[in-house]
Amino acid sequence: MPRAPVPPEVDEFLRLPNPAVIATLRPDGSPHSVPTWYDWDDGRVLLNMEDTRLRLRYMAHDPRVALTVLGSGEDGWYRHVSLLGRIVSIEDDESLADIDRLALRYTGHPFRTRDRKRVSAWLEPERWHGWP
Amino acid sequence: MPRAPVPPEVDEFLRLPNPAVIATLRPDGSPHSVPTWYDWDDGRVLLNMEDTRLRLRYMAHDPRVALTVLGSGEDGWYRHVSLLGRIVSIEDDESLADIDRLALRYTGHPFRTRDRKRVSAWLEPERWHGWP
Repeated sequence: MPRAPVPPEVDEFLRLPNPAVIATLRPDGSPHSVPTWYDWDDGRVLLNMEDTRLRLRYMAHDPRVALTVLGSGEDGWYRHVSLLGRIVSIEDDESLADIDRLALRYTGHPFRTRDRKRVSAWLEPERWHGWP
Repeated sequence: MPRAPVPPEVDEFLRLPNPAVIATLRPDGSPHSVPTWYDWDDGRVLLNMEDTRLRLRYMAHDPRVALTVLGSGEDGWYRHVSLLGRIVSIEDDESLADIDRLALRYTGHPFRTRDRKRVSAWLEPERWHGWP
């Protein structure tokens, strides 16, 4: 599997608001996966979740994650890119700026639910594979 | 997370030829993820891959996997179901019957590439989560 940084065509693919699935490790080492919004920010991936989410605990316990991004254009998910890497930062999203950023990217509107605590996590890719 | 067997609405969701992502464990214990076709067969999941695929080696080394299935109807991937479980069987798909079954499910046609060895794997879910 090629190492990061990703080539230009992967960079371009990851900029699109595509469906994605994040895989984390449970405390017993087994994999857990769930769909997620993300943003691609110059080589790193922004993720955001409610602070009650299991995957937040999993990431804090073991930072190793994988993100698969599925194409949603005319070729559909024949096009896809996966990133293997680590969560390098977990921080409170007190102002909800990060979830608004993701909601705007995916829906065109700020995030509706504003009374729950949210947390941002940054993924630094180490390797990638796929067909962008 | 609820235990398998899944309730009827999850069963119904998994019968659809939806996009899916399989997460496996690399030998160092880190997660690996990649899109996959699947079929839902009365409580078990059929997967199929070329015998050269990394994920086949990973599954043989550690059978613990997670599968996230994304909705593709009008609600899009707001609807999703994830299964956590184990690969309970890995067998050669010598006649290509299993990959044809998946190709027919997803494309309506038998699988085109017929000169490569393929392998089927069966996933037995232990837990599930999501919004079917």
